[in-house]
Amino acid sequence: MTACDLGLVGLGTMGANLARNLADHRISVALHDPAPGTAARLAGELAGRGQAAPSLADLVGALKAPRTIFLMVPAGAAVDQSVDALLPLLTVGDAIVDGGNSLYMDTERRVETCAAHGVDFLGFGLSGGAEGARHGPSIMAGGGPSVGRLAPMFRAIAAQAEGEACFAHVGPGGAGHFVKMLHNGIEYALMQLIAESYQLMHGMLGLSPAEMAAVFRTWAGGDLGGFLIEAAARVLATPDVDTGRPLIDLIEDRAGQKGTGRWAASATLDYGVAAPTLAEAVHARCLSALKPERVAAQTALGSPMRFFAGDRTAFVADLGAALLAANVAVHAQGFATLAAASAEKGWALDLGQIARIWRGGCIIRSRLLAAIAAAYGRNADLANLLRDPDVWAIVAPRDPAWRRIVGAAVAHGVPAPAFASALSYVDAYRTGRLWANMIEGQRDLFGAHGFGRVDRPGRFHADWAKS
Amino acid sequence: MTACDLGLVGLGTMGANLARNLADHRISVALHDPAPGTAARLAGELAGRGQAAPSLADLVGALKAPRTIFLMVPAGAAVDQSVDALLPLLTVGDAIVDGGNSLYMDTERRVETCAAHGVDFLGFGLSGGAEGARHGPSIMAGGGPSVGRLAPMFRAIAAQAEGEACFAHVGPGGAGHFVKMLHNGIEYALMQLIAESYQLMHGMLGLSPAEMAAVFRTWAGGDLGGFLIEAAARVLATPDVDTGRPLIDLIEDRAGQKGTGRWAASATLDYGVAAPTLAEAVHARCLSALKPERVAAQTALGSPMRFFAGDRTAFVADLGAALLAANVAVHAQGFATLAAASAEKGWALDLGQIARIWRGGCIIRSRLLAAIAAAYGRNADLANLLRDPDVWAIVAPRDPAWRRIVGAAVAHGVPAPAFASALSYVDAYRTGRLWANMIEGQRDLFGAHGFGRVDRPGRFHADWAKS
Repeated sequence: MTACDLGLVGLGTMGANLARNLADHRISVALHDPAPGTAARLAGELAGRGQAAPSLADLVGALKAPRTIFLMVPAGAAVDQSVDALLPLLTVGDAIVDGGNSLYMDTERRVETCAAHGVDFLGFGLSGGAEGARHGPSIMAGGGPSVGRLAPMFRAIAAQAEGEACFAHVGPGGAGHFVKMLHNGIEYALMQLIAESYQLMHGMLGLSPAEMAAVFRTWAGGDLGGFLIEAAARVLATPDVDTGRPLIDLIEDRAGQKGTGRWAASATLDYGVAAPTLAEAVHARCLSALKPERVAAQTALGSPMRFFAGDRTAFVADLGAALLAANVAVHAQGFATLAAASAEKGWALDLGQIARIWRGGCIIRSRLLAAIAAAYGRNADLANLLRDPDVWAIVAPRDPAWRRIVGAAVAHGVPAPAFASALSYVDAYRTGRLWANMIEGQRDLFGAHGFGRVDRPGRFHADWAKS
Repeated sequence: MTACDLGLVGLGTMGANLARNLADHRISVALHDPAPGTAARLAGELAGRGQAAPSLADLVGALKAPRTIFLMVPAGAAVDQSVDALLPLLTVGDAIVDGGNSLYMDTERRVETCAAHGVDFLGFGLSGGAEGARHGPSIMAGGGPSVGRLAPMFRAIAAQAEGEACFAHVGPGGAGHFVKMLHNGIEYALMQLIAESYQLMHGMLGLSPAEMAAVFRTWAGGDLGGFLIEAAARVLATPDVDTGRPLIDLIEDRAGQKGTGRWAASATLDYGVAAPTLAEAVHARCLSALKPERVAAQTALGSPMRFFAGDRTAFVADLGAALLAANVAVHAQGFATLAAASAEKGWALDLGQIARIWRGGCIIRSRLLAAIAAAYGRNADLANLLRDPDVWAIVAPRDPAWRRIVGAAVAHGVPAPAFASALSYVDAYRTGRLWANMIEGQRDLFGAHGFGRVDRPGRFHADWAKS
């Protein structure tokens, strides 16, 4: 038995597919899973490139030095348990890589714990779902010196975009998991925009799933092109195998929210970054989860929805324009959060590099990300994505259509919180004089907070009028 | 020297005013502040009812048993330092009350720490600002057995609303600070709605501060009546003492956000509660803080704002209607968060009682809170505030005006994220079939998450169409 290149712990869908991907690239893997027989079965499938390890000690014993153990276990306690079990078996210079969706602060804690044993703990964000793991994910590597040693292996299994591997060492400590968390925050918001587009076309226009699938397919072929738009077309085109009806009509309208999407929304608050559409997307899922309450409320209070009597073709064209402009706003919010966290944590994130490795493999991959990568390539210190002329040239001509869509949604009682929130983000961002003088006046009135003035420096208090 | 009823640590604006309020009600206070001379000055002012304590040991020594020390120090490390310094001086049965805006999880930790010494740690949320502390705040008491002993003292100094003291023992542990945090989350959202109303009238209609002050005064006299509406009128009516110009025009439009308002928005995410408008309010403050970026963006990208050519009187009437309806939606989100946290933490919060003690003293006090208190009085288990017929009777007739306002804001490029978000919350809440089937389909397609069906129980996967 020759020693293996990598040890893999956790052989669920993602872990097993990753092992297959590694084996395809001639990287030999020692395999461990708590479920008996799982590792042996997978090792058999991988022929000479997989070796089952019944225990973690066997796994560690099967590896070339310096050893690398890749964890593909659920975020949370399972990671800590794996680390605790592995540390006594490892030696200085070995590395543990956490490839799950761990909270970046947990990763930073684990880096400290492992460093005390001379072991390098790395947090890798992987995106692309089961298919990505099998055929090429986007990999956001975070952590210390061992990343350099591991880079060739992970570059090999990563997705490719325009000839570049979708792998990057984005920063130290928890940076990889932070970047992945924001990827998922953007993903939540993009999915909500698609879901609202569906609701508008389905509820307000009365389009059939087949008609909507055609719309999304058309969009997928144009500037909106990307994995999620294609996925929407596929969802709408899928029949129920039992009844032959469109499956979308039979799926329960109740989405869960947990982990990375919610954490991303919280993180924008922690770093004081305006990212309202990322938050709206999480709240929209929370609203969807209130299914019985919503059904009861519709019965008691009446549905707010009114059918649309206007030009449906023009509406759909407007909707596509609005969707692309809103997608830009969502990315602007996500990248602004990355920039703020990078500054506060001293990570020196390269936003252009992040956009480049998101062009392939990951769930949010799209043509738009190429434009974003180019924007940061031109100016790494862009204050906001909206300030790149080429990116703004995507938004500006679509502004009137975007307003028409939000206006129509409001008038017809179809909730479109992400479309509305993204538009008011862009509007507020380019409004030099914006509402908060009223807030500051009120805060001084009741809390003696003090306020700044536009005509001189300093903090001031006022003797407020009595009524 | 007779022993004092209460020890007060921290004699800033709030602490000193609280001491004056206590002394007015014949409650004697021992006073301590780290700044030399502060306690002695205040003790002199309070004549026989205040006693300066140069050290914490002096303070503890000056108190009747069982002793009560009330902390009015900044949230965070100062509270921990005070607790650490006090614990060795106290004995079983004594109590420490934290009257600041502490994070409720910190309060729960401190309850544990103090309980190990037999000391009861209580977290009291106080609202009403400096004036409230002086003449009657709203007090949300959280904690253990000592609350009963302290209740008469704090009931005496609290605000009164319709003959009832605005004091309640809302729940155990961190419940008092949690309720105060949500109060502030609601406050952020109500202030944002007022700020957007100001922006619409000022920017889009071109009303003068004096004209807007008159509008807010009219609103304050009607169903919108409440402290924040009155405060807006006062802010708009206040001239700058130096120039005579309306002060509002000279205040910098840049608001801070920190502590309770932001924590409230995070807490709604933690408990999975849809409260999008609380989040929008925090993000709106973050946007306001980007003042130089906004000014530069307006120059580079152009202002989105268009003047309003319609009937200004009708617009202002619509705006008042929209503001009241949106206020209801904000309270619905806040109370839904209280209900969810209460269920998860086992606090058994009485939402009607909370609404009652918010009718007076606190920053969000308003006529609407009387209607909310009545709603929970009729049905303590209301699924959502919107489901109370009398509360819905406030919203329903204002629905068309609300849509007109959001539609006009969108069409005229005036960002009104809180108005828009609150409307889509109400729309989504009464939409039985809502967008998330698309999200669930996509999640199964790329992540094998599985989905529920509307026609049968269980979790399902689909073989998704290839394109």
